Amino acid sequence: MIVSALLTSVGINTALCVLFFTLYSILRKQPSNYEVYVPRLLTEGTSKRRSRFKLERLIPSAGWVAKAWRLSEEELFSLSGLDGVVFMRMITFSLKTFTFAGIIGIFVLLPVNCWGNQLKDIDIADFVNNSLDVFTISNVNSGSHWLWVHFSAVYIVTGFICILLFYEYKYISSRRISYFYSSEPQPHHFTILVHSIPTSSSGSISDSVQSFFSELYPSTYLSHVVVRRTGKIRSLVNEAKKMYKRVTQLRSDSTQQKNTQRGFPGLFSRKNSVIYYEKKLEDIEENVRLKQLEASLAGEEARAAFVFFKSRFGAATAFHLQQSVNPTHWITELAPEPHDVYWPFFSESFMRRWISKLVVVLVCTTFTIVFLIPVVIVQGLTNLNQLEILFPFLTSILTIKFFSQIVTGYLPSLILQLFLKLVPPAMEFLSSIQGYISHSDIEMSASRKVLWFTVWNVFFATVFSGSILSMFNTLLDPKNIPGKLAVAVPAQASFFITYVVTQGWTSVSSELFRVIPFIFSWITRPFTSQDDEFEVPSTPYHKDIPRVLFFGLLVGIFALKKLSLASTLTMPLPVLTLLFNEYCRKRFLPIFVAYSAESLKKKDRQDQNDATMTQFYENLVNAYKDPALLPIQHSQNNDNLRSPLISQA
Amino acid sequence: MIVSALLTSVGINTALCVLFFTLYSILRKQPSNYEVYVPRLLTEGTSKRRSRFKLERLIPSAGWVAKAWRLSEEELFSLSGLDGVVFMRMITFSLKTFTFAGIIGIFVLLPVNCWGNQLKDIDIADFVNNSLDVFTISNVNSGSHWLWVHFSAVYIVTGFICILLFYEYKYISSRRISYFYSSEPQPHHFTILVHSIPTSSSGSISDSVQSFFSELYPSTYLSHVVVRRTGKIRSLVNEAKKMYKRVTQLRSDSTQQKNTQRGFPGLFSRKNSVIYYEKKLEDIEENVRLKQLEASLAGEEARAAFVFFKSRFGAATAFHLQQSVNPTHWITELAPEPHDVYWPFFSESFMRRWISKLVVVLVCTTFTIVFLIPVVIVQGLTNLNQLEILFPFLTSILTIKFFSQIVTGYLPSLILQLFLKLVPPAMEFLSSIQGYISHSDIEMSASRKVLWFTVWNVFFATVFSGSILSMFNTLLDPKNIPGKLAVAVPAQASFFITYVVTQGWTSVSSELFRVIPFIFSWITRPFTSQDDEFEVPSTPYHKDIPRVLFFGLLVGIFALKKLSLASTLTMPLPVLTLLFNEYCRKRFLPIFVAYSAESLKKKDRQDQNDATMTQFYENLVNAYKDPALLPIQHSQNNDNLRSPLISQA
Repeated sequence: MIVSALLTSVGINTALCVLFFTLYSILRKQPSNYEVYVPRLLTEGTSKRRSRFKLERLIPSAGWVAKAWRLSEEELFSLSGLDGVVFMRMITFSLKTFTFAGIIGIFVLLPVNCWGNQLKDIDIADFVNNSLDVFTISNVNSGSHWLWVHFSAVYIVTGFICILLFYEYKYISSRRISYFYSSEPQPHHFTILVHSIPTSSSGSISDSVQSFFSELYPSTYLSHVVVRRTGKIRSLVNEAKKMYKRVTQLRSDSTQQKNTQRGFPGLFSRKNSVIYYEKKLEDIEENVRLKQLEASLAGEEARAAFVFFKSRFGAATAFHLQQSVNPTHWITELAPEPHDVYWPFFSESFMRRWISKLVVVLVCTTFTIVFLIPVVIVQGLTNLNQLEILFPFLTSILTIKFFSQIVTGYLPSLILQLFLKLVPPAMEFLSSIQGYISHSDIEMSASRKVLWFTVWNVFFATVFSGSILSMFNTLLDPKNIPGKLAVAVPAQASFFITYVVTQGWTSVSSELFRVIPFIFSWITRPFTSQDDEFEVPSTPYHKDIPRVLFFGLLVGIFALKKLSLASTLTMPLPVLTLLFNEYCRKRFLPIFVAYSAESLKKKDRQDQNDATMTQFYENLVNAYKDPALLPIQHSQNNDNLRSPLISQA
Repeated sequence: MIVSALLTSVGINTALCVLFFTLYSILRKQPSNYEVYVPRLLTEGTSKRRSRFKLERLIPSAGWVAKAWRLSEEELFSLSGLDGVVFMRMITFSLKTFTFAGIIGIFVLLPVNCWGNQLKDIDIADFVNNSLDVFTISNVNSGSHWLWVHFSAVYIVTGFICILLFYEYKYISSRRISYFYSSEPQPHHFTILVHSIPTSSSGSISDSVQSFFSELYPSTYLSHVVVRRTGKIRSLVNEAKKMYKRVTQLRSDSTQQKNTQRGFPGLFSRKNSVIYYEKKLEDIEENVRLKQLEASLAGEEARAAFVFFKSRFGAATAFHLQQSVNPTHWITELAPEPHDVYWPFFSESFMRRWISKLVVVLVCTTFTIVFLIPVVIVQGLTNLNQLEILFPFLTSILTIKFFSQIVTGYLPSLILQLFLKLVPPAMEFLSSIQGYISHSDIEMSASRKVLWFTVWNVFFATVFSGSILSMFNTLLDPKNIPGKLAVAVPAQASFFITYVVTQGWTSVSSELFRVIPFIFSWITRPFTSQDDEFEVPSTPYHKDIPRVLFFGLLVGIFALKKLSLASTLTMPLPVLTLLFNEYCRKRFLPIFVAYSAESLKKKDRQDQNDATMTQFYENLVNAYKDPALLPIQHSQNNDNLRSPLISQA
């Protein structure tokens, strides 16, 4: 690659950036897009869809960037909550890191590299035709003491990033704790979910829960709600919703037609069908109400319950202890936030949860590994001859060179993209039948599955396909790896360095990016379930591989450049960063996993003199009410039935 | 190998067995060995060392075996506690397993193998010169339906073992729970150990502990004992002990001499030296008492304390919750039993513990990996020429063929054995400086280290040395592994089958043997610390490798014998046993790790009406008293000082 090619690439990317920025700045001002860009302001009613046209709406503007940038952290917190603050800190952290590394790279390392003439001297006259290799470490002369500058740069940048990272981690954990202290009482802090409740011949599940928890936690146990099987009601409610939509549609149609085509014969029949569907909707709603009444009085109990405690400390205690002598009974989880509960799949037995999990892991692994096979087969069908046989009418078009080029050039990649579009929904479906009881858990699990899918398919299948055997041969002789990598650097620079450096350094520099999805989920949901499936926080070491590879590469380069002292002195660096990572994990990760006894007790004490707590305790039971058991009312009659028929105990 | 060789080997081993059995049965009857064989009866005073000689003592007897066998489980429990019961069950379990497998092997599989003639027909006339291969599956004809007998045998034996194992596991866990219910109150059930207590400028560590725990656990916190640094006192106490031993020795010497050599001049000086050492002992004891007084009043506090609770449930709660907002402060562990506390190394800070652990892991890994290098070098020095140069006087002896054969044949293995003797104490030393706070933890950790050392050095270094590259080449082509293994069976039968079958099947059959060291430690110490170093219970999968390898071997054999359906149908077996293992882990392991809330509460309720609990609470503080602070009194004067000077708060 030569300099002019790089500059062209930079130019194209910059132009694209400006284009997207302009588009965004225009699109966000269109009232029809408000739902996408300012949904919260819409709900709060502070922003209204103005239908009047203004020229200003079509002119790109950059003022909002400055405005967003000038916000203090407290303003940001009040506007977008803790998530916004953390996200903003991520961005400033990355900026700091890349600025620092960039300054060192451009003003220190680049001159050192150009100064050397191992490959060739830099050609100032014909600058744009210089090979990019002239600007890399490959151009520094072997054994030159200028290599120590590179050595120092690695230590300085790594040290800078670690220090920055430590303080960032510390700050965000302190924000999380202070957010907890300042928050209103949250139902899910006082609640645990118990499943695999053993059935007893003597009484109902509800009685078992009552006696079990009032015996174990007499001073903190408050009450409970047993989960009921509401699959049938749920499908009836969905049916009613669909029917209501149809009725509304028909009604608005008939009103429009009344206005435009007065007395037309079709109107009568349409009015009739409105009446028919309204009657049907009423029937379904009546049916739902009866079923709800039946369910709340004598409905089939699932072997799971939400158990409420008088204090956060009480709920945490019940969560952390193993409840029953039999470890597969009375299994506790922290309750998700009320709106986050995934009601449809309440897999209640230990064995069923476990088996469905195993099946999902198996299916998901198979899917990930064999995914490329059908894609490649389908891609194979898209050569010209095959297409002409399958779709004879295309023959005339495909003889045109332009079209045939598009077909052979873009069709395979289009097919791959279409197949890839299937992955996220497929993974989300798999996660949803795995036994998770909250939407956020399902999403987290699906994201992890997609991540693993991507790592496997993009990294292993694409990059190393065909060369896996030669890679293993290298691994058999580990002491040569750095050397081999270093020799391969100039030749393979374009791909390998790009991969290692981008993956490696973003991994080093943004320890926080690794955690950010978890941080986000931790903010909304303070404890993560200890799940050993694809758990990233507990086994983050695979993420260290690119970084260690990068350091290994450096060791190889220094050795090849005949500066063996530097080569040896680089070796402690990967060990030190791994230890730093491990220390951070011990020092900060527990804060994001569970609240400490100290903070729970402090928060509970705040509430002791709060008069509204009695009200809060009363509402707690209603917070975890199955939505399928909530009263519905779409039809316009039966106003007397609009009051809730049921109350769940 | 031929039949006669096998029979010879069986004969030698049987003879050795009988010899050792006879020796044991004689040696255990000698009063001088009572300390080794019946230490408990000696302490209890039910058995006395009879000095009178009886002929019976020299005649081997086998009655004690029958007596031991006839004991019911309850008798065994009352005689040797739960450990004895569990050990006996292990033995009967293994007997059952091997009897079942043996019957199937001898009466079903062996006839099937002999019936075939793939290798050659069995030679009944010259039975002892048949090759052993005739009795193996290799001799069954390819494609023969008799192979289905082997197939069924594998499923039946595996199923039998799994069912037996499940009930055994279930029974032992229920015994453990009922043992807990029936036991007397144990101090370590009411106590936790807190370390990494933050220092505060305002008060002492003791004040911090008091305010922290009385605030967090107002209803269950009882009191605490801060650990004090007593290294100096400990060395003084040891000095006093040595001195006391010397004085006792001198005194008995001078008494003996008084009786035999009345008035001899040496007596006077010896008497003088007794007086001198007695004076010195008194001085040291006085010094110890002063230092103890000083330490208990204003001694340097370590940042660790034993915290006592009014109930087991309270202690368990405090243990399971993260205490402090800063996860590296106020770290809780379950207290070891009082006599089990390892006082000398009270590494109290989080960082120091962590660093010493890292260093130990590093040293231990290096030691394990490079162990064989010096051994091989030393062995290399033991060739005859080297020896003759180093020790010229040996030349004449070494020319005798017998001696030179001994030297070249046994010396290398002797050297290896001597080096191996160093391993357990070295590992124990490493574990002791790693920051464990109980003797049993140190021993467990040392055992794990020795286990890993053995696995690495015996298995990898000895068996696969030199062939590691060819092994990797096999792994690169995984679908051929079963085939290659199966082809290798006849040739390598002697070693490979022996390894896989003994390792594999004992692993399958004695899931419990895997857990037995942990069970033993769990019985004496109910919770194991969650330590990720070499933790076996949490990562037992490496133990499944031989078993899966065994099943892989079977798949290969069936494929090679052209019975591909059996080959395919064998594949689910390893998956099923792995799932069985996983299920057992989920169902039973937690019972051995921690007591459930249910059982803790039940046990606490038993004590509520127990009048002796007040006394127990009072003694709790004294149970965890540093032995270095206990009063010592060896010298015969100063009787007024014999009462304890100190009381630790």
